Amino acid sequence: MSQPAKPLHRLAWRDGVMRDGTRVVADEVPVAIVHDGTTYAVMMASPADLADFAIGFSLTEGIIETPKEVDDLELVETDLGWVVRLWLSERPRSALTTRRRHLTGPAGCGLCGVESLSEAVKPAKPVGPGRPLAPLALAQGFDALAARQPLGDLTRAAHAAAFLAPDGSVMVREDVGRHNALDKLIGALARAEIDATQGAILMTSRVSVELVQKAAMAGAPILAAISAPSTLAVKLADDAGITLVAVARADGFEVFSHPHRIQPEQEHARVA
Amino acid sequence: MSQPAKPLHRLAWRDGVMRDGTRVVADEVPVAIVHDGTTYAVMMASPADLADFAIGFSLTEGIIETPKEVDDLELVETDLGWVVRLWLSERPRSALTTRRRHLTGPAGCGLCGVESLSEAVKPAKPVGPGRPLAPLALAQGFDALAARQPLGDLTRAAHAAAFLAPDGSVMVREDVGRHNALDKLIGALARAEIDATQGAILMTSRVSVELVQKAAMAGAPILAAISAPSTLAVKLADDAGITLVAVARADGFEVFSHPHRIQPEQEHARVA
Repeated sequence: MSQPAKPLHRLAWRDGVMRDGTRVVADEVPVAIVHDGTTYAVMMASPADLADFAIGFSLTEGIIETPKEVDDLELVETDLGWVVRLWLSERPRSALTTRRRHLTGPAGCGLCGVESLSEAVKPAKPVGPGRPLAPLALAQGFDALAARQPLGDLTRAAHAAAFLAPDGSVMVREDVGRHNALDKLIGALARAEIDATQGAILMTSRVSVELVQKAAMAGAPILAAISAPSTLAVKLADDAGITLVAVARADGFEVFSHPHRIQPEQEHARVA
Repeated sequence: MSQPAKPLHRLAWRDGVMRDGTRVVADEVPVAIVHDGTTYAVMMASPADLADFAIGFSLTEGIIETPKEVDDLELVETDLGWVVRLWLSERPRSALTTRRRHLTGPAGCGLCGVESLSEAVKPAKPVGPGRPLAPLALAQGFDALAARQPLGDLTRAAHAAAFLAPDGSVMVREDVGRHNALDKLIGALARAEIDATQGAILMTSRVSVELVQKAAMAGAPILAAISAPSTLAVKLADDAGITLVAVARADGFEVFSHPHRIQPEQEHARVA
């Protein structure tokens, strides 16, 4: 499969000399997500797996509860970028209409911004018990993720999100943006009817608040990332019952919330 | 100055053993930017330099043209995050009111998303001629940036944006988000009445479309970053007349658009 990237001409300064050459650069295009004829959002994204992206974004935004609530999905490429048109079934359509009515309410209310703060950091949806995970299985999951990043290998400028299933298999989605990569993964899992509540989500990025919110919407009980979390991301993961693993490197990892799901004994039991 | 970060308790898995300990983690809080009583946007950001942030964001969004158009600015900390209230002078206030009226126009128009694509990638504002920059001066600018990232040093999870002035001096702003770091820098420059058109902006991140748009709004003719650009970021920089330098590492850098401003001769002239 060809990757969303292109070789671009550029000059390279090395050892005191400027030389001609090319570098393969990741594509980034605006993608409009349109529900029943109304644009919900435009995101800058890698133009690949856009059906996964639109379904995943609609799930993590709470617009739909399952891909079955999308009656039809249409991908339209234009000169300026992509439009993904989703036609919703009755329940999400009326829920979204009601939500829109609220959004267009009185703009300049007396609270002057305070109400928009609580809107921005809604409590994350609590996750279920999930399954324990052994450190070795987590390390193997990250190894599998590292081996399956064709866009990242080409451009050194893409994030990846992976789902590590209980059987050790890994599904990966990539994007120039880490939030998009996770939405694509969540959409792909839902479309393939893979149960996210029994595995772990692995990310190549740091852990922002939004990643925790999205993992929670997908019901994933373990979120593990290569870089550090923010304080608020840790708090949200703690509140939602999510096991937050971060700073996952070759020599180990750190656990910031609900460490009970990380069970070294699992590993010894398996090795024995 | 104390940094927006906190030590958090976490477990660390190393060499087959889980140990107790702490890690200093970057704060990330919602910040609502409110113009004349109406919330324009809520961003997740590092709670520092918030006046710079609000002024810079208002500049790069095209709401104000100079900090002088802000009559008053109020920072309010709440349990949920920060609110920055700006009270605008007559010109920006009526311009924003007109813009809001357009935004609340008919939502589900026949174009179904296509119009929102052109809204998302507006042509970047063309920059002026600026000044040439020698490779050595650029390398020294990045060295100065690396030495002035207290939040990054503490947390290994913050981006930084720097302005490299013609005299070699550097101003730095940090944030968990790269777009916020650049908005903070642009606000700080404008508030200090430093002319961004005669220097270069340096970033620790990759180069997205939005960073080019923001640099263009600030009139900065050179944008240099440690990581790679996207194809659309290169196109926008090319259209706006910006010299886009990327993949800037210890051993060199690459120039993706308008390379005429990078002048090795400058360096030889100075050394001679």
